[in-house]
Parts: sequence; structure tokens; C-alpha cells
Amino acid sequence: MSRVIRVGGAQMGPLQKSDSRQVAVERMIALLDRARERDCRLVVFPELALTTFFPRWDMDDPREIDAYFETEMPNAATRPLFDRAKEHGLAFSFGYGERVEEDGGQHRYNTSILVDETGHIVGKYRKTHLPGHAAFDPERSFQHLEKKYFEVGNTGFRAWRFMGGIVGMCICNDRRWPETYRVLGLQGVEMVLLGFNTPSVNSQRASEAEDLRTFHNDLSVQAGAYQNGTWVVSIAKAGVEDGHELLGGSTVVHPSGRIVARAQTVDDELIVADCDLDACNFYKETIFDFARHRRIEHYGLITQQTGVVRPD
Amino acid sequence: MSRVIRVGGAQMGPLQKSDSRQVAVERMIALLDRARERDCRLVVFPELALTTFFPRWDMDDPREIDAYFETEMPNAATRPLFDRAKEHGLAFSFGYGERVEEDGGQHRYNTSILVDETGHIVGKYRKTHLPGHAAFDPERSFQHLEKKYFEVGNTGFRAWRFMGGIVGMCICNDRRWPETYRVLGLQGVEMVLLGFNTPSVNSQRASEAEDLRTFHNDLSVQAGAYQNGTWVVSIAKAGVEDGHELLGGSTVVHPSGRIVARAQTVDDELIVADCDLDACNFYKETIFDFARHRRIEHYGLITQQTGVVRPD
Repeated sequence: MSRVIRVGGAQMGPLQKSDSRQVAVERMIALLDRARERDCRLVVFPELALTTFFPRWDMDDPREIDAYFETEMPNAATRPLFDRAKEHGLAFSFGYGERVEEDGGQHRYNTSILVDETGHIVGKYRKTHLPGHAAFDPERSFQHLEKKYFEVGNTGFRAWRFMGGIVGMCICNDRRWPETYRVLGLQGVEMVLLGFNTPSVNSQRASEAEDLRTFHNDLSVQAGAYQNGTWVVSIAKAGVEDGHELLGGSTVVHPSGRIVARAQTVDDELIVADCDLDACNFYKETIFDFARHRRIEHYGLITQQTGVVRPD
Repeated sequence: MSRVIRVGGAQMGPLQKSDSRQVAVERMIALLDRARERDCRLVVFPELALTTFFPRWDMDDPREIDAYFETEMPNAATRPLFDRAKEHGLAFSFGYGERVEEDGGQHRYNTSILVDETGHIVGKYRKTHLPGHAAFDPERSFQHLEKKYFEVGNTGFRAWRFMGGIVGMCICNDRRWPETYRVLGLQGVEMVLLGFNTPSVNSQRASEAEDLRTFHNDLSVQAGAYQNGTWVVSIAKAGVEDGHELLGGSTVVHPSGRIVARAQTVDDELIVADCDLDACNFYKETIFDFARHRRIEHYGLITQQTGVVRPD
């Protein structure tokens, strides 16, 4: 039985501070419609798809901060998105700021969800690798305050049986960390869905511009795909948000590590690829047959030690 | 104080079954001489630099097998290499088959050593990730019997203070495993020396030929360099050995992941790069500042579980 999933990677252009959830959702619905026309079965939207990338702004007023977070999902603003996807029979995934009461406290996460073709949320992931910093940094050319607004996710990297395969999620900076893909790979993941919002310039080194940052993005997702024999669908929110430029370069990556689809714009754009989950098998059964080749007795530092300890 | 090391990557062309150790060592000495002329301070030779890549041959006669292994280092055949390097004041690294009596038994490893500019062996590494198989496989277009001839190394991935920096080693297939670089990265490694012997065609899939295999080689070393903010010096034994073609494409990779030097031939060839160890710092102090960003509480599977366990 064929296990080909036609995937639509729904890159989004910029969202300005002034854009409401309705503006975002209308554009997402238009991308769903395009995906339906192209006979996609699964649509992947970016990280923080409903708002501008707000961690670039230093805010202290809790009401101002909370305005970027959702307290339930779906909610009034996103219900039309769920409805349209269900109407089209499309599964989908997107990211948003999640504010939640749990264990007697208030928590904020950078979250993504996996929704099946009947509109049910079947998986939730909360971002593990928060980049940036927790307090205003005058040395940066712009701020990246993810460590201020989000807690480290408490879900870990989980994979789900989904659409006849095994699907996992991660978010943005997670894609640079090989641990992300490996934890998913050890669950047999066949497709990793990930959204990102990545500034086109390094706030701490102006000379590191778009070409190098695009190379780093590609390198990370291609290595993660190859080294675990999995598809990776890596989708940007792109373009100029409130004067700050974000990378485009959304891609679909084959388990060989080759890019099979790439966005050409920094605007709303659907990239489409037929992803045969059985293309993972050769890698998983030969060079990356973990059971035969991995040597966990020599990996101890990876989980024993967070930071660097230099030799004497 | 500058921490620039001019490195010579000493790619070697093929060694035939009929080639003696002396043939190999003479060619290695010629590469040392070239490195001296170019003012290199450190020379990196390939995996199994003294012999043909013998795991392609299925052998059962212990004497035939043992002929590919060294029982001491240096020995009569390699002494001239050590002498010439010392004369030039060159540090170096190379790989060889090691047969050793330890713990009351006979052991064979795929080994590399790190030798300082006075000719002292300061580091030894025994290959962890043995590719291939342990018994003749009639389904392959040629054999890759590393699991037959070598035990899994018992050294683990260690980094040493060396030439004013922190230097580690790995061998061939190790480079495809992100765990390799990460264990070294957690020791602050600034330069990874690695040699390889990689067939140009996949013995289990004829359609996977040189372009894809070169891409996989580059992808693995570039990702390892970038994700740990380290130089990688990745050196091939290349060309046609006894009718079997090995990849060239030796490279020196910057901590950005960019390739700064690449071999153009599949023969003896010296590639030279000025490796500034301080170029690692920016990556290690920002995006890959492990102490601030790694989340070991979510990496457990990496060391708990060797093979894949799929979700229910």
C-alpha cells in the first residue's frame, strides 16, 4: 500500500504588529484553499503563525504580552481555519503562543499542534530550545527575547502515528540541534514538521547575513533528515515584519537529505511535494540502522552534561 | 596571542593489495615534505593509511588478516615517517589497523593516533561506529566487513589539549553520527581530525553513486562543524584500489560549516588551510552556547535506547 503523502508547505509572508488574528487566519485559509486545489493532504504552517514575531519587542506590561498568546485552541479567531480544513479533509499543523493554567500556575509556551483531517488536535509540542535571551540586551542590533516570554517546553520530542506513518514536530531553533531529530528518530519518525521565524541578519554579528543564515538553515534540516532517514517539512514566516527582515527558504527535505521543494518568495507561498514515507526505509535499514550501529555506551556526556567541560 | 594553525590535509591516492607498508610510508613522507614547504604545522592523513581498504575482502586465514594490522607503533615500517615529521617539526595524525594484547586477550581495532611535533604519540582513538557487516553478504555488490575485522573501539571520543587548542579525532563512518561531534563538542573541541575510506558507490544500492555520496560526506562534516562550532579536517584515501573506487573530496571545514579547502584529485594531494581556533568562539558563545541552550532532560532516549522503539 502506498504511503505517499502530498504535503503543502504553507510559507507565510510577514505579519505586522497591527495585523489582527483575523488577518492571519484569512491568509492561512487562502493557503488551505490552494492546498486543496493541489490535492494536498497535509498542510504545514510556520511557528507563531497568528502574530508578528513579537519576541523582537521588549515588553513588560502583562496585558501587552498576553495579547500575543492564545488561551484555548481552537478559539473564536482560529475556528474558521479548523472548519475550512475539515471541509477540505486536510490535516494541518501550525504554531502559536500558548498561555495555559497548569499545576496551579500560569505558563507560556511556544507551541505547535498537529490536527487531523477531521479537525481533532492529535498532538501538541512545546518548544524545547529557546534561542536568544531573557532580558533587554543593549549590545544587540535588535532583541530576541524568547527566553523572556516562553518557558522551556515540558512535552519533549514526541512522535505520533499519523496518516499511516510516524510524524513528529519541532519548532525553529530546535532544528539546529541534532538531539531534536535523534530523539524523534529513535521513535522511528518518518516526517518532521517544523515552522520557523528566523531573522535574516544575526543581531550579534552584522556580517552574518542572509546567505550564511540560509546555508545554516538548510544544513541543519538536511543533516537532520539524512542522519535519521526522515522527511523534514521546514516552513518559514518570511519577509519584513515591522522593519525587521525574516528569512524565507521554506523547504521539503527528502530522507536522503536532498531538498525536493523550496519557496521562491518571502510571501504567502505554497510549496508542494509528494512525500513517500517508504523512502525512509533504505536509510533506516542500512547506514542508519540504529540497533546495529549506535553505541550508547560512548554517548554518556550527551545526557550527563549540559555545558562544556574542557580537558585538563 | 594568535591561535592560527596551518593544517595540511594529506589526501592519499589508492593503495593496492600488493603495495607494501614502505610504498605507503614513502608517499606519506613526500606529503610531509610538501607540507613543510607550505609551512604547515599539523598534517592529517586518512583512515587505514598504511594499507589498501582491506575490509572489502572476505578473509578467514588469520595470517592473511593479521598482515593488515600493526602490533606496535611506531614500528620498523613507520619509523621513517615519525623521523621525518620530527625533523620538520610537524605534528600529524593517521589511521591504521591495530592488533593488541590487552586484558589477557587479542583485540583488533580501526585506530588513529595524534602525534606531536617531537614525535610523541599523545592521543589514540579506536573507531566507535563500525559500518558494514560481520559475515559475507552475497546481496552486496562488494563487501564491507568492518564488523568482522574490528571490535568496537573502547576509547570513546576524547579531546586533548594540543597546539594551544582542543583537538579530537574520529574515523570515517563516525562522521555521519551527530553523537560523535557532540561528545567532542561537550569537551570544547576546536578541531576534529578524521580520515575516511568511502566507496564511491553504495554496495546495497547501485543508483546511489558518487554525487549523492559526496553530498552525504560534505553534509555530515559541515553539520558537525557548525553545530559544535569546530574546525573539521576530513581526509580521504581516494581513487581506485584493486578495482574498487573510493571517494575523494577531502575538506577542511570552518566552524561556520563552510568548506574552506577541498581536494581536486583522487590522488596524493595536500590541501592547506589556516585554521584560526578563535573562529570557534562566536558559535560556542552565542547560538551553540551549550550551557545556556541545551536541555538534557529531553534527550534521555539518546543514551537510554540503542535502536528504534515506535509509538503505539
